[in-house]
Amino acid sequence: MKSLLDVVNEIDNFPYHGSKSYDQYVGRLWEFHLANDSRAHGYIPDFVVQAMPWNSDFRIDDSSDPRRVTLLKSSLTDANQAIADLLLSARGDKIFKCLNGWRNEEYRILGAKLDLKIERAGAGLFGITTTGVHMTVYTRSPDGEILLWVPKRSMTTKKNPGKLDSSVAGGVPAGVEPFECLVKEAAEEASLSPELTRLRAKATGCVMEYHVEDAGEGLLEPSVKFVYDMEIDRETVLQPADAEVEEFRLMTATEVQENIVAGNYKPMCVMVLIDFLIRHGILTIENEKDYSELVARTHRFLPFPLRPE
Amino acid sequence: MKSLLDVVNEIDNFPYHGSKSYDQYVGRLWEFHLANDSRAHGYIPDFVVQAMPWNSDFRIDDSSDPRRVTLLKSSLTDANQAIADLLLSARGDKIFKCLNGWRNEEYRILGAKLDLKIERAGAGLFGITTTGVHMTVYTRSPDGEILLWVPKRSMTTKKNPGKLDSSVAGGVPAGVEPFECLVKEAAEEASLSPELTRLRAKATGCVMEYHVEDAGEGLLEPSVKFVYDMEIDRETVLQPADAEVEEFRLMTATEVQENIVAGNYKPMCVMVLIDFLIRHGILTIENEKDYSELVARTHRFLPFPLRPE
Repeated sequence: MKSLLDVVNEIDNFPYHGSKSYDQYVGRLWEFHLANDSRAHGYIPDFVVQAMPWNSDFRIDDSSDPRRVTLLKSSLTDANQAIADLLLSARGDKIFKCLNGWRNEEYRILGAKLDLKIERAGAGLFGITTTGVHMTVYTRSPDGEILLWVPKRSMTTKKNPGKLDSSVAGGVPAGVEPFECLVKEAAEEASLSPELTRLRAKATGCVMEYHVEDAGEGLLEPSVKFVYDMEIDRETVLQPADAEVEEFRLMTATEVQENIVAGNYKPMCVMVLIDFLIRHGILTIENEKDYSELVARTHRFLPFPLRPE
Repeated sequence: MKSLLDVVNEIDNFPYHGSKSYDQYVGRLWEFHLANDSRAHGYIPDFVVQAMPWNSDFRIDDSSDPRRVTLLKSSLTDANQAIADLLLSARGDKIFKCLNGWRNEEYRILGAKLDLKIERAGAGLFGITTTGVHMTVYTRSPDGEILLWVPKRSMTTKKNPGKLDSSVAGGVPAGVEPFECLVKEAAEEASLSPELTRLRAKATGCVMEYHVEDAGEGLLEPSVKFVYDMEIDRETVLQPADAEVEEFRLMTATEVQENIVAGNYKPMCVMVLIDFLIRHGILTIENEKDYSELVARTHRFLPFPLRPE
């Protein structure tokens, strides 16, 4: 049977500095840079750089080490327009499958000096750090045992059909505060009233991971997920409010853990659940051999700026 | 005024890979190795390698890159004896100030294949990862506000006199389970009964940091601190049980934060308190600009094994 760390290794699969594959792996990537900013904001795999219909708004420099792609526009309006134009052009040419999932919603480029935005479906093409919110809603059995509210995704939803998920989760669009995003998602996904979420949801930190799609060969997806807990009474019942979720069920922590190692969870929420199990004293140094490593891996120091200098 | 991140930068001051000083800094260090184990277990600064009275139990190899010190003894008894003999000899010669604080208590070398031990006062000379337990004991005001029990160390104690500290804290000696160590320390330091600690203390994760003494020029001290919370009623009062603590006071989270940035806390417990303030929703992404970085920095991925292969 897999361990939790085995599952984490599949999700947080960008190599760590000091591992055997690190130098070779990173050496094959391109850095994504913004005008007037010495810091990289993402890594782009070579197949994306080769396929993208770059125009003169970008400089493609394969003589630098590491190789880099630089957005040359330095004003807010021009830079945002350049990104949008490029992605629309790539979408029109049907070059990247990910752009089929166009959202008309944008992520902010975390750490950029300007308020720069990228269409969500295209964020992975630039390898920027994305932002999400995840909330675990739980109650307690009469003898005090924690029971988690777990949604099962609909079999007809496009991404991760039939998989288990965080009680509430979503990407944070540019210009929206994470907590406000959470309040909205809780109502839309789990029929939780804004009043209840505002009263009971508690910020408990964030989970950071560095995922690479297609077992390390695909798009690079570093992420920060702001994490919230909400304990509710046993009378409050979570209900699907849109077609994405089929049903909500109450599960013990043991059932959650079994479903994680069985691969029944959507990968994107696994780190959030492991963090929950650790913070609530369900996993301990005495019962989980990889305890300290799981704590470090769920809170990865990402190599890109999280806020402007 | 300092930010929390400024304080964290002083404590977690081993450079990160990718920072300007990393390669040069690490290039000046020696790796500490054990027999039949390809993984390094610590970094040793050059001044220690030059001053230590090495004997034939150790190989000093300055032609390898990085340079390394290897303990050659491969049996459990011989290896432990070799470490003990070396440190006793260095202590006799009064070479290192840290050995004046000889404890007659040992740390386990985390991640070693054998059950190897190093006298606590000498752990920093090999740069191994040390293990501790920290508990924050808190109660709530009538309106629900968190109040933390904060000890002030005695002015006559040798280390960090007069500084504020974790409610309960201590190093975990080799052969002792972290939770059992916590139960003992809670009784010895804060007069908390073993029954109460066993009932109410809750494991919530661990804090990992990489400190280098003397602002980066001294001994290397990576550490794992297992973290516990204990909420108690307002009638239970913490009392000093030994001469190390002068008094316990109840403080609001704001007072704790002010004392951290004012430098009134013992540096070793600052990360534990920041982790507490984040887990309890007192610091949030909306009120703390360095939120995500503080989460990553308090849970550092250390470059040494935390458990045997």
